[in-house]
Amino acid sequence: MAPTKKGILERLNAGEIVIGDGGFVVALEKRGYVKAGPWTPEAAAEHPEAVRQLHREFLRAGSNVMQTFTFYCSDDKLENRGNKLTFTGTQINEAACDLAREVADEGDALVAGGVSQTPSYLSCKSDKEVKAIFKKQLDVFTKKNVDFLIVEYFEHVEEAVWAVEVLKEAGKPVAASLCIGPEGDMHGVSPGDCAVKLVKAGAQIVGVNCHFDPMTCVKTVKMMKEGVEKAGLKAHYMVQPLALHTPDCDCRGFIDLPEFPYALEPRALTRWDMHKYAREAYNAGIRFIGGCCGFEPYHIRAVAEELAQERGFLPAASEKHGLWGSALEMHTKPWVRARARRDYWENLKPATGRPHSASMSTPDGWGYTRGHAELMQQKEATSKDQLKQLFEMSKKK
Amino acid sequence: MAPTKKGILERLNAGEIVIGDGGFVVALEKRGYVKAGPWTPEAAAEHPEAVRQLHREFLRAGSNVMQTFTFYCSDDKLENRGNKLTFTGTQINEAACDLAREVADEGDALVAGGVSQTPSYLSCKSDKEVKAIFKKQLDVFTKKNVDFLIVEYFEHVEEAVWAVEVLKEAGKPVAASLCIGPEGDMHGVSPGDCAVKLVKAGAQIVGVNCHFDPMTCVKTVKMMKEGVEKAGLKAHYMVQPLALHTPDCDCRGFIDLPEFPYALEPRALTRWDMHKYAREAYNAGIRFIGGCCGFEPYHIRAVAEELAQERGFLPAASEKHGLWGSALEMHTKPWVRARARRDYWENLKPATGRPHSASMSTPDGWGYTRGHAELMQQKEATSKDQLKQLFEMSKKK
Amino acid sequence: MAPTKKGILERLNAGEIVIGDGGFVVALEKRGYVKAGPWTPEAAAEHPEAVRQLHREFLRAGSNVMQTFTFYCSDDKLENRGNKLTFTGTQINEAACDLAREVADEGDALVAGGVSQTPSYLSCKSDKEVKAIFKKQLDVFTKKNVDFLIVEYFEHVEEAVWAVEVLKEAGKPVAASLCIGPEGDMHGVSPGDCAVKLVKAGAQIVGVNCHFDPMTCVKTVKMMKEGVEKAGLKAHYMVQPLALHTPDCDCRGFIDLPEFPYALEPRALTRWDMHKYAREAYNAGIRFIGGCCGFEPYHIRAVAEELAQERGFLPAASEKHGLWGSALEMHTKPWVRARARRDYWENLKPATGRPHSASMSTPDGWGYTRGHAELMQQKEATSKDQLKQLFEMSKKK
Amino acid sequence: MAPTKKGILERLNAGEIVIGDGGFVVALEKRGYVKAGPWTPEAAAEHPEAVRQLHREFLRAGSNVMQTFTFYCSDDKLENRGNKLTFTGTQINEAACDLAREVADEGDALVAGGVSQTPSYLSCKSDKEVKAIFKKQLDVFTKKNVDFLIVEYFEHVEEAVWAVEVLKEAGKPVAASLCIGPEGDMHGVSPGDCAVKLVKAGAQIVGVNCHFDPMTCVKTVKMMKEGVEKAGLKAHYMVQPLALHTPDCDCRGFIDLPEFPYALEPRALTRWDMHKYAREAYNAGIRFIGGCCGFEPYHIRAVAEELAQERGFLPAASEKHGLWGSALEMHTKPWVRARARRDYWENLKPATGRPHSASMSTPDGWGYTRGHAELMQQKEATSKDQLKQLFEMSKKK
Repeated sequence: MAPTKKGILERLNAGEIVIGDGGFVVALEKRGYVKAGPWTPEAAAEHPEAVRQLHREFLRAGSNVMQTFTFYCSDDKLENRGNKLTFTGTQINEAACDLAREVADEGDALVAGGVSQTPSYLSCKSDKEVKAIFKKQLDVFTKKNVDFLIVEYFEHVEEAVWAVEVLKEAGKPVAASLCIGPEGDMHGVSPGDCAVKLVKAGAQIVGVNCHFDPMTCVKTVKMMKEGVEKAGLKAHYMVQPLALHTPDCDCRGFIDLPEFPYALEPRALTRWDMHKYAREAYNAGIRFIGGCCGFEPYHIRAVAEELAQERGFLPAASEKHGLWGSALEMHTKPWVRARARRDYWENLKPATGRPHSASMSTPDGWGYTRGHAELMQQKEATSKDQLKQLFEMSKKK
Repeated sequence: MAPTKKGILERLNAGEIVIGDGGFVVALEKRGYVKAGPWTPEAAAEHPEAVRQLHREFLRAGSNVMQTFTFYCSDDKLENRGNKLTFTGTQINEAACDLAREVADEGDALVAGGVSQTPSYLSCKSDKEVKAIFKKQLDVFTKKNVDFLIVEYFEHVEEAVWAVEVLKEAGKPVAASLCIGPEGDMHGVSPGDCAVKLVKAGAQIVGVNCHFDPMTCVKTVKMMKEGVEKAGLKAHYMVQPLALHTPDCDCRGFIDLPEFPYALEPRALTRWDMHKYAREAYNAGIRFIGGCCGFEPYHIRAVAEELAQERGFLPAASEKHGLWGSALEMHTKPWVRARARRDYWENLKPATGRPHSASMSTPDGWGYTRGHAELMQQKEATSKDQLKQLFEMSKKK
Repeated sequence: MAPTKKGILERLNAGEIVIGDGGFVVALEKRGYVKAGPWTPEAAAEHPEAVRQLHREFLRAGSNVMQTFTFYCSDDKLENRGNKLTFTGTQINEAACDLAREVADEGDALVAGGVSQTPSYLSCKSDKEVKAIFKKQLDVFTKKNVDFLIVEYFEHVEEAVWAVEVLKEAGKPVAASLCIGPEGDMHGVSPGDCAVKLVKAGAQIVGVNCHFDPMTCVKTVKMMKEGVEKAGLKAHYMVQPLALHTPDCDCRGFIDLPEFPYALEPRALTRWDMHKYAREAYNAGIRFIGGCCGFEPYHIRAVAEELAQERGFLPAASEKHGLWGSALEMHTKPWVRARARRDYWENLKPATGRPHSASMSTPDGWGYTRGHAELMQQKEATSKDQLKQLFEMSKKK
Repeated sequence: MAPTKKGILERLNAGEIVIGDGGFVVALEKRGYVKAGPWTPEAAAEHPEAVRQLHREFLRAGSNVMQTFTFYCSDDKLENRGNKLTFTGTQINEAACDLAREVADEGDALVAGGVSQTPSYLSCKSDKEVKAIFKKQLDVFTKKNVDFLIVEYFEHVEEAVWAVEVLKEAGKPVAASLCIGPEGDMHGVSPGDCAVKLVKAGAQIVGVNCHFDPMTCVKTVKMMKEGVEKAGLKAHYMVQPLALHTPDCDCRGFIDLPEFPYALEPRALTRWDMHKYAREAYNAGIRFIGGCCGFEPYHIRAVAEELAQERGFLPAASEKHGLWGSALEMHTKPWVRARARRDYWENLKPATGRPHSASMSTPDGWGYTRGHAELMQQKEATSKDQLKQLFEMSKKK
């Protein structure tokens, strides 16, 4: 961190808004550098120019946090299910730290080293085994001197608590973010109880990311806040939702939607949806406001634009944007120029262009969680027989 | 062009499939480098790293053509409606050529210098004046030695013919692509007649781009092909459609949809829609198959994957993709692994997640075209009074 | 016919608007008196009070024509596919004539005896055999002295011509209405050519009924009118469409929609849709304007209300209606009273309340028509083996 | 009641299923005999043949209860808002009793005399004044010797309790049904508390009718049942929901939907939706299962068919129906015959045919209830000035 930069807690304690970045795995999947399925971040080492560019776009859009592109970057996940890699886990973690630092130093952003849930936990390994995995990633973050740490995308608060316990040993601020909705974690622990556990474990910032749309995520963080306050504790709050409309999700989130992960396009939020999200999050008392899967740089820019008055400035990328569509004043067609106004975009319900599509799906979740045989993770690729068995199971549902 | 590379006509004459790239202005608008409204490409000079990265992503996805990022890069457009720029038109055209060449030389791609329709034509300037504008861009393309030329995004075949007449003087192959649908150009000239005019003017490749969804564009190019063949002429055919579903467009295309340009998200095509498009275009005898607004690198990859058997190879980015979702075999959840099969994705009708949105809109077009006072383009920014007048007009509709 | 009543041709020759009735089989199916599948009208004899009441409701709504409830009332159809009946065909035809006459005489309505397409034609019987069937029904209509005759719901113009040839022998006016859309009859004869054939055979009134939504039907009748006029002939025109939105039908109409016949509810037209239909039909020069399947009395009333100025009066049932919702002025809730105005209802796009339903279906038609083995009609009920075979065929599509 | 008929409590005490009828005002509005807005039942006296026929259709469909067509038949409502009538309230109430009795005696049905909420309550009249209104109706029911009494369509439990207190004096069984959803009555009293109040007031049967779709109504009655059981009381339960999908309603129900009352068509339930409703209601322990607005005879028949095994017989109207579409075995087209099976209809999500309609609306309710000036009911018709003021209010929302 440059000596002049304020740390994450300094900012939050001062009541500042901290804008997060967007989801890297989904954005880079669309750009051709991440494989859906494994969702691993080897591109940090393989294609640094692509990762660097995405960091820059989010920085330019207003992000104050460059999360290291280390999602699912634990050794057990990297080796999982037949995913062959040229680089070691440590090399990828290091490369990701370097890229985040390089871009963070081009602006007013901090570097956050992140860990996420592990296949080992799902496969019922012990806390000692799982913690060793987090520790190995932490060693890289410490060596690379990230500014703070994020425990993110955990479906089970138990595992997240283990991660917090490991990460807090580094003496840096720790944020903890679960991928849960209002119904709580996969073991049925409520958002309020989850938050209390995480704060007690040592997290200074708690919240949720991924799995649900913005309004659902804000609602869940509100429940966390109520839980923390009811327990007489204190924390800061973060939210990094999907940029997808998910009115039809069950408790396991968008993974269970039939469209996941290759046909989610029609659910994507517009920039105007983002304005509403940013305001709602701010009004809920959340001050670390970012995004996850589906967020493109312009989504983050919309968050920064909505909160421009509170923050006192616009992001760099707003030079290529007109607030509420005002840039359309320069459009060729007069009827498009007539759309250069806030009330037009604020009230528009966009058509889907999809007369054969319904607005809601029936989630597909089989309801398994940690402990169920079908969830034991394996290193070798899924065999044809296993796949055939899965297809049969899906037919019976 | 590297000595070992075959030219565009050599490829097409040999029956090869040439895969185009996607639309730069919309993709870069989302990344924060292009302003919707003016839609000008000054980022080629201002932010070359962002433009270079997008070129690379399309190359990696399978593109054989790197179009210079020179859309709307005529001097009259760059000065239009209060758009202030640091770079001259020539500087931007040159920078765009350099970036396209740099990335083209990293793979099997050609550089195509492109011109597009001008505000001067809309403002009823003479053919001499309009041609001088194209000539100025052509001088840069000649100096930078692009591999071929594209006349693209023209709503009036008359102007496109003028552009072909200028560009063919350089002695390089010329492709001509209108942004029209089955109803023809803005003066009511049918697709077949448009194509005949373009071929007679000297274009070796004709087709359409932008404004309509893939199936509508393929249908329009078929009509062009029929016209050309009926006239006893010969040509190659190209198609570069939107990556948006537009069942509700009128003859002026997606510009008139109420969602243009800031709320088009729910209309985005999935990769599976792209498979169908690529096959349909191929079956129609079109061999230059690419994309326009809304295409992201993964859309081009899907085109390349659908045509992999015909071409004999997969694109580089397919290393991060499983054909028809097979990479999901490595997904954590068993119910998502059960989706790792073609029939699942091929038949899925994705939900929109938007219970308050209809599937179709009523286009907003006021029906003006060249010659109407409201379409005269001006250099100064639209005034408040002008905007107010436009809002009043839009209310009365 | 009462001595003071003008005949159908007198009315049409004088330029009067003649309002038809709605579809009896579908309305009575919902009331519990008709069986979907056979769609036969034995209720005329079995439950005369139900049929009489429906006649009265249409009369009260503004109908000038009481069609005898004799749809599919040919002997070959009545015996078809295991349908056991207490009454003979002649008894049902006679009962239907009596009911129509009884109610017609309560107001300003004419009685029209109707015949419809036969299983015999589909089973490739000769013109002689098919004509004998129509003759038997005509004998009843002659005995009961109906006011005019309607040849209606024919998919093949050839069979309709046969019917016209039989019916015109009675010396009464003959109207001929096909259930076709803009693509023409099941043998591919265009609407214009169909109309010419029917006029040449002796029909004084031609048009279409059933199978498509109002706007599609009006469009088809326009094509008929153009054909007749181009051939230098003269005719009057009629239209009796579905009260269902069918944007997704193929040439065989709503029969092929997956929702036919038991899940068509969400497609039902509102009364406001009917206003638009009535105006469109009137503007197209059609003067015999009625309805078919899906029309309830209030739909016919809306037609009569839209054309009240041209006709000079409102129908009786308008005493229980306020034009354009004005009766809501008497509603309890003030926010509902605020809806008592034309622009509210005219512009409303009603929500479907169905988040899991798409707006369009993929028609199911297998494309068979007269001559295909699968279309040969049989008297005995479909066997289990036949059904099983059909299910297998439907799976393969 | 015929001596051999069992009373309503005998039946329910014996665990029998009692099937109600459908909503008369909406069904008769479509047939041309009721005016939307006032919604008053003068047709019982004016057009007895129409009311009798509807009773017969419900009887034939399986109804065991003929509710007197006396909805909104209190003197204060009949005089309300400029509604001019030929018959007195007493005459209408009497005519309605006679019609219900006549048809009930044609089958196994009981006559239920019904009262509904009054404008006097909304206008803040005293309990004494309101009770006098109910008493006047009760006098007719007593004279006409109905079999039991229903207090139905009350938004405020307070007024319903007053009605129960009046009606129980007659010594006949009293059922009490509110038009509320899970959020409770318009004063915020929960369904459980409402039910307790009604039982304590003397109702032997409690439940809900109208305002919400079947699943929401069943859910609300479940909450009532829990409340009653928690209070240590006993009751029977009834449910008579809308035949409309209303996922988007707020606590005031379908009145607030923008489509109410003239554009609700796309929301109509299919017969297959009714099967699910009947099963759900039965499983919830509800034994008096009927319908309200939107129910046509075939909807009630579907309820009777779903519960045929439990009841031991099919309704009369099933002679014109095939269970689960089996009558389609007799359809002309083989692809329609292929639909003659339960799984086809059970799983079909019907398309709406409405590409310009969304699936959900935003309710319009202004949130007023008893006590608000805007809800004071008046006898004279709403004036133009009042309407203009309402339109202005609706614009501001």
